[in-house]
Amino acid sequence: MREAFREELTALTERLVEMTRFVGTAMDKATQALLQADLPLAESVISADDAVNRLQHEFDQRAIGLIARQQPVATDLRTLVTGLRMAADLERMGDLAVHLAKVARLKYPSRVVPEELRDTIGAMSRVAQDLAAKAGQVIQERDVELAIQMERDDDEMDRLHRTLFQLMLAKDWSHGIETAVDVTLCGRYYERFADHAVSVARRVVYLVTGEYDATAAGAV
Amino acid sequence: MREAFREELTALTERLVEMTRFVGTAMDKATQALLQADLPLAESVISADDAVNRLQHEFDQRAIGLIARQQPVATDLRTLVTGLRMAADLERMGDLAVHLAKVARLKYPSRVVPEELRDTIGAMSRVAQDLAAKAGQVIQERDVELAIQMERDDDEMDRLHRTLFQLMLAKDWSHGIETAVDVTLCGRYYERFADHAVSVARRVVYLVTGEYDATAAGAV
Repeated sequence: MREAFREELTALTERLVEMTRFVGTAMDKATQALLQADLPLAESVISADDAVNRLQHEFDQRAIGLIARQQPVATDLRTLVTGLRMAADLERMGDLAVHLAKVARLKYPSRVVPEELRDTIGAMSRVAQDLAAKAGQVIQERDVELAIQMERDDDEMDRLHRTLFQLMLAKDWSHGIETAVDVTLCGRYYERFADHAVSVARRVVYLVTGEYDATAAGAV
Repeated sequence: MREAFREELTALTERLVEMTRFVGTAMDKATQALLQADLPLAESVISADDAVNRLQHEFDQRAIGLIARQQPVATDLRTLVTGLRMAADLERMGDLAVHLAKVARLKYPSRVVPEELRDTIGAMSRVAQDLAAKAGQVIQERDVELAIQMERDDDEMDRLHRTLFQLMLAKDWSHGIETAVDVTLCGRYYERFADHAVSVARRVVYLVTGEYDATAAGAV
């Protein structure tokens, strides 16, 4: 019985790691769709979102089923409840990639991101993908050091986000209100994606150390 | 034992209702702070956020403790897990009110919202507060009809959100990029606040009927 429980926990962990890979790929494709006004790519991100929703739903069913059947207490129960929260974070990261793809689709055939912002948006996407990949590693290896490093990556995301605003608020901004509105929303989606990845990492740290930084968590 | 369990479930439900009242008030005050450039009011919303974080934390501890001690299955377990999710939605609604208050604080003594958008922002805030109050009623009375009505209120929020964009994109917009960026972010915070309130209601519907609209849920 205990061995079956361990095996199921391992399978559930693997499922979360799979979700991190899925949303990292979605983020990559959504950004390409945005930067290149690539409609088929945008559509593919939007239609793939069902898969991550399904992964979350299955995760939830299995985790709740495991709680009901095995009635775990203490650390095991906390692991499963935390897993439910991480699955919700990851599902939300998928939604945020979809939001980016939908902006690309809505504005097609126009390009949403003006030339002088492309580098910043590209960098935000790379940080976001990197955070998704690291979140997967933190889940798999319970790597607290890497989780702490992710906080610094998130600071880099915040810095890039501020750069985006500075570029839009510069006197020589010539792309009008509509582009500023679109870029503001996209910037927010990247930032929130990163926040959720960091939130996943913090939850792992909490599981491992029993310490959860509620102040930091309040910010995500 | 069972009676103690029921009593604790009732107390936890009351706690969620308390959170809906709390975030509704925060939304009201944050909007006033935003519309009137009222710095002390903005500060009060920001510092009150700790209280809702604490409410969520206590809810979580009690709910997880109850699962560990009483080892509920089926509906009771589902109720507790759903409660954890609703508490997270409500905590996030508090964060979004704080985001609005922080915009007011950052731009003080300037007013963030230009004259011609004040009515729309005011209406978004009223819909948001109304949704928080209704979410409380849905939780307390398990009122599925009211939950369905909330979906229509959320459509009204989406309509107001579109109005906001139309006003910003009108040819006679004279308030520049910075105001457009601020208003875009604030609009997003109102919309997300409403989404989370609707998500709370959907979770209650799921508990009562066993049916969860995953397509709709994917959108929140």
